Amino acid sequence: MSKTRVGIVGARSYTARELLGCLLRHPDAEAVSLMARVEAPESLGEIHPPLRGRIDCPVTPIDLDVLTQETDVVFLCLPHGPAAEMARPLLEAGKRVIDLSADFRFRQPALYAQAYGQAHPAPELLDEAVYGLPELWRDEIRGARIVGNPGCYPTAVLLALAPLVRAYPNEVPAVGVIANCVSGVSGAGRTLSERTHFCEANEGLQPYGLVTHRHAPEIDAQITALTGRPLHVTFAPHLAPMDRGICATVHIPWHGDLPPMEEARGVFESLCDAEPLLRLMPEGKFVNTKAVANTNLCDIAVTADPRANLLIVMTAIDNLLKGASGQAIQNMNLMIGCEETTALL
Amino acid sequence: MSKTRVGIVGARSYTARELLGCLLRHPDAEAVSLMARVEAPESLGEIHPPLRGRIDCPVTPIDLDVLTQETDVVFLCLPHGPAAEMARPLLEAGKRVIDLSADFRFRQPALYAQAYGQAHPAPELLDEAVYGLPELWRDEIRGARIVGNPGCYPTAVLLALAPLVRAYPNEVPAVGVIANCVSGVSGAGRTLSERTHFCEANEGLQPYGLVTHRHAPEIDAQITALTGRPLHVTFAPHLAPMDRGICATVHIPWHGDLPPMEEARGVFESLCDAEPLLRLMPEGKFVNTKAVANTNLCDIAVTADPRANLLIVMTAIDNLLKGASGQAIQNMNLMIGCEETTALL
Amino acid sequence: MSKTRVGIVGARSYTARELLGCLLRHPDAEAVSLMARVEAPESLGEIHPPLRGRIDCPVTPIDLDVLTQETDVVFLCLPHGPAAEMARPLLEAGKRVIDLSADFRFRQPALYAQAYGQAHPAPELLDEAVYGLPELWRDEIRGARIVGNPGCYPTAVLLALAPLVRAYPNEVPAVGVIANCVSGVSGAGRTLSERTHFCEANEGLQPYGLVTHRHAPEIDAQITALTGRPLHVTFAPHLAPMDRGICATVHIPWHGDLPPMEEARGVFESLCDAEPLLRLMPEGKFVNTKAVANTNLCDIAVTADPRANLLIVMTAIDNLLKGASGQAIQNMNLMIGCEETTALL
Amino acid sequence: MSKTRVGIVGARSYTARELLGCLLRHPDAEAVSLMARVEAPESLGEIHPPLRGRIDCPVTPIDLDVLTQETDVVFLCLPHGPAAEMARPLLEAGKRVIDLSADFRFRQPALYAQAYGQAHPAPELLDEAVYGLPELWRDEIRGARIVGNPGCYPTAVLLALAPLVRAYPNEVPAVGVIANCVSGVSGAGRTLSERTHFCEANEGLQPYGLVTHRHAPEIDAQITALTGRPLHVTFAPHLAPMDRGICATVHIPWHGDLPPMEEARGVFESLCDAEPLLRLMPEGKFVNTKAVANTNLCDIAVTADPRANLLIVMTAIDNLLKGASGQAIQNMNLMIGCEETTALL
Repeated sequence: MSKTRVGIVGARSYTARELLGCLLRHPDAEAVSLMARVEAPESLGEIHPPLRGRIDCPVTPIDLDVLTQETDVVFLCLPHGPAAEMARPLLEAGKRVIDLSADFRFRQPALYAQAYGQAHPAPELLDEAVYGLPELWRDEIRGARIVGNPGCYPTAVLLALAPLVRAYPNEVPAVGVIANCVSGVSGAGRTLSERTHFCEANEGLQPYGLVTHRHAPEIDAQITALTGRPLHVTFAPHLAPMDRGICATVHIPWHGDLPPMEEARGVFESLCDAEPLLRLMPEGKFVNTKAVANTNLCDIAVTADPRANLLIVMTAIDNLLKGASGQAIQNMNLMIGCEETTALL
Repeated sequence: MSKTRVGIVGARSYTARELLGCLLRHPDAEAVSLMARVEAPESLGEIHPPLRGRIDCPVTPIDLDVLTQETDVVFLCLPHGPAAEMARPLLEAGKRVIDLSADFRFRQPALYAQAYGQAHPAPELLDEAVYGLPELWRDEIRGARIVGNPGCYPTAVLLALAPLVRAYPNEVPAVGVIANCVSGVSGAGRTLSERTHFCEANEGLQPYGLVTHRHAPEIDAQITALTGRPLHVTFAPHLAPMDRGICATVHIPWHGDLPPMEEARGVFESLCDAEPLLRLMPEGKFVNTKAVANTNLCDIAVTADPRANLLIVMTAIDNLLKGASGQAIQNMNLMIGCEETTALL
Repeated sequence: MSKTRVGIVGARSYTARELLGCLLRHPDAEAVSLMARVEAPESLGEIHPPLRGRIDCPVTPIDLDVLTQETDVVFLCLPHGPAAEMARPLLEAGKRVIDLSADFRFRQPALYAQAYGQAHPAPELLDEAVYGLPELWRDEIRGARIVGNPGCYPTAVLLALAPLVRAYPNEVPAVGVIANCVSGVSGAGRTLSERTHFCEANEGLQPYGLVTHRHAPEIDAQITALTGRPLHVTFAPHLAPMDRGICATVHIPWHGDLPPMEEARGVFESLCDAEPLLRLMPEGKFVNTKAVANTNLCDIAVTADPRANLLIVMTAIDNLLKGASGQAIQNMNLMIGCEETTALL
Repeated sequence: MSKTRVGIVGARSYTARELLGCLLRHPDAEAVSLMARVEAPESLGEIHPPLRGRIDCPVTPIDLDVLTQETDVVFLCLPHGPAAEMARPLLEAGKRVIDLSADFRFRQPALYAQAYGQAHPAPELLDEAVYGLPELWRDEIRGARIVGNPGCYPTAVLLALAPLVRAYPNEVPAVGVIANCVSGVSGAGRTLSERTHFCEANEGLQPYGLVTHRHAPEIDAQITALTGRPLHVTFAPHLAPMDRGICATVHIPWHGDLPPMEEARGVFESLCDAEPLLRLMPEGKFVNTKAVANTNLCDIAVTADPRANLLIVMTAIDNLLKGASGQAIQNMNLMIGCEETTALL
């Protein structure tokens, strides 16, 4: 079998670097076209020093013709807006597209417009776009032409919450769930900003974007898509002084009697037994982002506060891998029909 | 006026080091006796390199006679248990005691026994011990012979929650408040452990002690003491890879209609106007532990999630200062009658 | 005595923030005028969150008239070039100036032009400018109208090297001394750059500017000024993932027989006995930037490699304090005639 | 071909964890026996959380019989002393041994005794042991029964220095070379100590073990082994607040005229062209440990200080991979005859 030819647009980003790190080990796919908003071809090793000398492919100006001729699958590592604009001609040319921006995470243009403050550039594509969280939508991803790769926080929160919502549709309340999340700084990407300046971010822990963060409606919309009922999660993201990792601590005030712990754990045990990239922590142990750093794994732990009639589910992921590029590769694996975890374990 | 003579027992601890850092700048008090579980006198500079050459006082074996003869106020930086045992003879000798362990944070021996798994060594003292959070119990601290210095997490959570509980006694629910906290590693003290080994703690974010942490009953007991009604907070502590700082994000599902934001902020505005060490963040700005590192300040921010009928109060403190030693000095200042913020601003 | 009125130009910088942190504790000086390249007055607390509510002084657009009317001493926290241009009218108006840029660190315009790639904007002032390293030029600083505050690296290297050069003028070789230095990221200032982006700087150790760094000729020129003889130090700076601190490890191939260790240490013992801000480490102990973080101290250690006939002197400072703003306050203290270490211990 | 069966003794160590991380991706070798000083079998996932659920092999008490029956190659991750004692019976049983301790890094028992303060436990094996730096001793490693895996610092320093010593045997001086190195904290291993306590190591940069560090004689001995002539390097290690990485900055005072930069770079160009794991930085760029973190690569940069007639070579490695476990896998690959970089790129 010839290898799947991969194009990456937005090759300067950290997510592109991580995609390339995965592709280095991928037997069935290879990066053939790396593009970015550059004036002239640049050396990949200059842009991403860890990749120097390891991938023999320059980063060239964005050229749709080349992409359509040379690639089978294209990863878009662009800002929202430009991503959807580029997706349309790629799809028309028969390419399959995995978009790491937010452009294909919402099925309803109105939700997108509300969250991102602009009309969707390609609303006609939203119906067929699939939300690329394989643990929830594996079958749909397999056949998708366009996958909206999930946000990093939604990945962590949905893997904590969705299994319970499915198992206990009447007990998880429509409002009242609180998702406290802490992320490493790479979640903010490579663009320079005061918040991500080393001397500002180091040795500081700070909440930001509480309630208003754009990942909040993404979480709500996905849970609603799963259940058909509206659900609103209070989302409280924080920034921690580390490169990688998201820890989600999801508090679920329970409607009705709390299930016994073995029953609640059982939901996740079944899930983790079936899912190659999810791991349930032993009883009494919690998660740690460090244990999943540089992997595509998601660790899950469950506990309860019986006095408050509350379940607490914790997840930990690497925001750049399971929260972005690793998950994108997982989606590609499903789409091209190779083993789902190829290059990811 | 002659200076207040200060003794510190448990001088090897980080809290002792921070006490000494404050005392270096204190015009009205000075460290005259530093004791620890050592065999023979040791150099303070060897134990705490930052203090080398700055305080001319060796660390000597614990000697109650010397303490009673040479000091006016004694800070106990000992583990719980030994702290209370040492407090008794010091009080009998007429000393005033500020205990940084948990031994005098509970008024009821039963709560202490439950939280710390052992009977209280000096239950007869609990009645007169004052919980050393000056913003709540300033007058009582002034006259106290023995002060139980608050835990670091309770300080951060109580400064977020107590003002609302006072202002809205019927709206803050008896159960359902969730305090998500993230702490720097120094909160775990100087004792070596795998969790605080650099390579384990660095680049990792992890929940620990959810629901079972000993600071949870301390928080509950203090809120109950304030209001006379039981209240239970779900407490979720996390460890972040930084030296100092606690960020508390306290979610308060509201009983009844949410107050307008200006009203909720008004509660904290009045408080911060009156309190020299509390600062209210401007509307729309949240807290950052880095802004209060190496200070005795507490920053406070307020927001709401109207869809969930929830108030969210965030606080940030330096766990070693406002969360421990700085607060202990603040208590001492009240007890000896000098300006409360001396050496703290 | 009325307080010395202090102006700071370039108030957005980290060095301005640190100056203000010192001034908060200064009994004899106070910040009365904070200026920066802003369009309209800004809140100091917005610019420097740690200072929120602690200093009641807005940051206003640069206005020379106001500065000359309202201040006695002006600290310039500007880039080189603009600093010298602003110094001239201030001096003409009778102000005393402490410049934290590189503009007054060289006595010879040619050296400045070579290092900074531009002609000096006020060469006529260089003759009277004094290099503000009090341990070397205390008497000159006292009477100076304009002080060139030393670079952070030169401070660390000169405090290691100058005492030996003075004591052994013939044994320290004119070439061959190697100063390996490692700095925290705040040395690069507040300006955003890829190198100081958290995700680039964190978890990385990198050399930069070897041989070409502008602090190299500053070191050489100062040693030459001390001895009257040319000396060239090979300067190798590195960046480490921490906020603050410089560690200099200075290797001195010895011309002639190595002195006995007690003799070499004796040079520094005498010095540290006389200097309130220098500390000699005990024999066999080395320095650690952490022990001097947030202080104006400089720790010094000495060892030797007899097989290589080499002395090694290590120093550690806080690059923002003894390496910049703390030293600037020390210089101001000398200039205004108050105790040299006021607000610094 | 059946897979090479690998045993690891000392499975609790970070080096064992990293070996297992490489073996996870190795098509030709698999971990079959993991042993450590434990009382009863323990779960690997408990010991190394990142490996939870990924390798199905418990950690059992050390049992030589099992090792000899079940494995082909054994990695020793034990302290020096016990390592050599375990190597002997393994060799007698026909196993091939890769020792990550210092026990087989010296050919002369006297040098070992001097550096490690004890007689060598198996001196008769030293003659046949091969120093496992493939870039220097590839052919010898292929046939070796026992390989002494190099120290992390010696790997970084030798890759900087050995190529020049070979190319310029008369110009690199016998004394005078200075190797300044900075290491992440994992170099100190998993054993708890005050120095590696998070709150002590974080935000601090410190020299340690200058001149006396045990890696110094290892460097000297290896250079001497290469050239037949004695050479002494002044070795100055430092600790930086990061998990991984060593940066070596090696200053080489040149005997005679400095070669032109293109000639000096040429030495490394030829080397890096031939060596799959070495990368030469472009002219004017220096190394960064972050670019090689989590890889088995070594980056190399070259510059000069002509005024001091000095060449400077910088290298960066991941101390746990190229500096330990990755290199051990590289050695194993050579010994079992598979592609040298298998599981390493």
